[in-house]
Amino acid sequence: MSYPQLFLKKNEDKRLRQGHLWVFSNEVDSQRSPLEQFTAGDLVLVHDAGGKALGIAYLNPHALICARLLTRKTNVKIGESFFKARLTQALALRERLFDKPYYRLVFGESDGLPGLVIDRFGVVLSVQITTAGMERHKDVLVKVLLELLTPTAILLKNDNSQRQLENLSLEPELVHGELPEQLLIEENNVRFIVNVAEGQKTGWFYDHRNSRAQFAQACRGLKVLDLFSYAGAWGISAAVAGAAEVCCVDSSESALALASASAELNRVHDKMQFVRSDVFEFLKQAREQQQHYDAIILDPPALIKRKKDFKAGYEAYRRLNHLALQVLSNNGILVSASCSHHLSRDNLHEILRSSARHIDRHLVFFGSGSQGPDHPIHPALPETDYLKTFFCAVSSRL
Amino acid sequence: MSYPQLFLKKNEDKRLRQGHLWVFSNEVDSQRSPLEQFTAGDLVLVHDAGGKALGIAYLNPHALICARLLTRKTNVKIGESFFKARLTQALALRERLFDKPYYRLVFGESDGLPGLVIDRFGVVLSVQITTAGMERHKDVLVKVLLELLTPTAILLKNDNSQRQLENLSLEPELVHGELPEQLLIEENNVRFIVNVAEGQKTGWFYDHRNSRAQFAQACRGLKVLDLFSYAGAWGISAAVAGAAEVCCVDSSESALALASASAELNRVHDKMQFVRSDVFEFLKQAREQQQHYDAIILDPPALIKRKKDFKAGYEAYRRLNHLALQVLSNNGILVSASCSHHLSRDNLHEILRSSARHIDRHLVFFGSGSQGPDHPIHPALPETDYLKTFFCAVSSRL
Repeated sequence: MSYPQLFLKKNEDKRLRQGHLWVFSNEVDSQRSPLEQFTAGDLVLVHDAGGKALGIAYLNPHALICARLLTRKTNVKIGESFFKARLTQALALRERLFDKPYYRLVFGESDGLPGLVIDRFGVVLSVQITTAGMERHKDVLVKVLLELLTPTAILLKNDNSQRQLENLSLEPELVHGELPEQLLIEENNVRFIVNVAEGQKTGWFYDHRNSRAQFAQACRGLKVLDLFSYAGAWGISAAVAGAAEVCCVDSSESALALASASAELNRVHDKMQFVRSDVFEFLKQAREQQQHYDAIILDPPALIKRKKDFKAGYEAYRRLNHLALQVLSNNGILVSASCSHHLSRDNLHEILRSSARHIDRHLVFFGSGSQGPDHPIHPALPETDYLKTFFCAVSSRL
Repeated sequence: MSYPQLFLKKNEDKRLRQGHLWVFSNEVDSQRSPLEQFTAGDLVLVHDAGGKALGIAYLNPHALICARLLTRKTNVKIGESFFKARLTQALALRERLFDKPYYRLVFGESDGLPGLVIDRFGVVLSVQITTAGMERHKDVLVKVLLELLTPTAILLKNDNSQRQLENLSLEPELVHGELPEQLLIEENNVRFIVNVAEGQKTGWFYDHRNSRAQFAQACRGLKVLDLFSYAGAWGISAAVAGAAEVCCVDSSESALALASASAELNRVHDKMQFVRSDVFEFLKQAREQQQHYDAIILDPPALIKRKKDFKAGYEAYRRLNHLALQVLSNNGILVSASCSHHLSRDNLHEILRSSARHIDRHLVFFGSGSQGPDHPIHPALPETDYLKTFFCAVSSRL
């Protein structure tokens, strides 16, 4: 229960005091507490320059974010009962908010568990551990999860690029049970097939749940285009809610196969189309052929992964939104999303405002969304606020 | 169809070209087009300094915002068919988004109708005209509304303080039909009694509709406190959704009477309490008596009406949120809203972050909301984006 000490330089405790949980390596007083003495994953008691203890963190001497605070208490043991309390609290919030066991159970720092993401697909748990500090507690976490949720399978996905920086294996690890042949989830009363083992990220994107419900409801009777459809979450939701026809476009054959199977499951397959194509190419061709859609959902993967990609990424978002507006029917609906943390809400707002002006359309936002409630935002960590969605009603020039 | 010309000074067309609709009096080239030649409400064709026509606006020579653009077209008649087209478009968007006729039908500039707000309560329309320019078209508007919606009553509320600046009467005017003895609306499948004639603003606040649904769902089984309850929209919604008990606090006797009647209508009266009190006093007393609530909705009226009130208003928001956090149970829910345009989303975010830190609680946002879809936001007019709501899950120090 006594952990080695890590001292910060003078004034470098400010961010932590404001609520943030990260220590950057240049903030450490490396004369008083040389980082080299530690091994990746070690626990430390963080102190300000005046010697006041601020909390317990795990550490990685080789990472830019060299320590992440696990607790502001200074005399607790980071062990089974610690993780059990954290996971119980995360579970209680989700059980308050959702009727069915399909949600993100843990969202890293926001749930007091830096470096850990867990998506719950009923009896299957898909886990992403992204830091050496959390990896150290893998076995305890699995033990507590088994106790709390009695899942039939726990898969550590391990395919996050951040693991490379932390020198962790990228091999997936099935640490408990067996994955079922076919895994079904429910979102807004629509059923979907999820491929945990081979799907992107944890296998499903729960973060857009609320926005999808709002989109689907607005699509009744409309001709809908679902761009970057992945497994069809937006398009199938719209079809089930009463869209007239839906076209899903994605570059991945396997994603479209999954979408098609989910469409059959919900008995909307006959009004859906699945097109394998690059989205830019698809939109350019639709514009040339003067095809129009009444409602378009534009939900690309992160086009700005690192800060230095901002300029190119911004331009890609701009072009996509511009093209989408050009193939939108008059009095149509465009829902435009971005999951790039580096593209701010204001950036996407500006792209939509200027694109609409450029082609002389009247565009208003009849809604704007963020992550669903199972992805809580930590008010002191802007890094936890990554998703933005604008609901646009677009008409000809007023 | 030919309107007198209004010329802007050099470069003063920039805001309009970006999509904004307002001209400030200091932007007018008063040598080329003296404002004194115009009467409040006159229509003009706005030109940039180079002589290019930008659109048709109505004008008030005595107002700071001296002109508001009605259209970017330069050769249309601002008359019955113009207003009919605008109202038809506004109606079409609402009919796409709502199943029942209870919504804000027109939200000013966002619907291309500056100076006009219309709330629809089924067969009753409550109208706010805030500018001399829109007042000029009152009769045409009423005619078109009768044609489109065949309402049984149209009330011009005329109690907006902006009318004073425009030198307009503050007397309400029932321009059609008769108000019913009792007026019922539905919001998220909950019924409410609305007092159009004597209620605040148009008589009801539709803008929080989506947030209320989300709040109510999270309140099942909880002890709920509804602060500044007005007619009980949040509290009754929570009670209907399954809250264990609900206490509504407001300083207005008549608002609480309305809330109480709506509670009876929804058969949740027996688990509700209605307390007439100043909210600050109520919270201070609750804190002293160590009373706690599991879920609190803090939705005050605009505490910053003008920019110069910012400092005092900010402090009032800070104190209210601080007090609310102090009477919140552990693992409780605080929904904190502000309808002050001058209190930014970042301001409220900061108030919540710092208050939680100050009393050493862990607070995360499990949602953040804005106006409902019947209050669309114009991307070039930040003035149309006024409502912010944060859903906070709050626990003891992690």
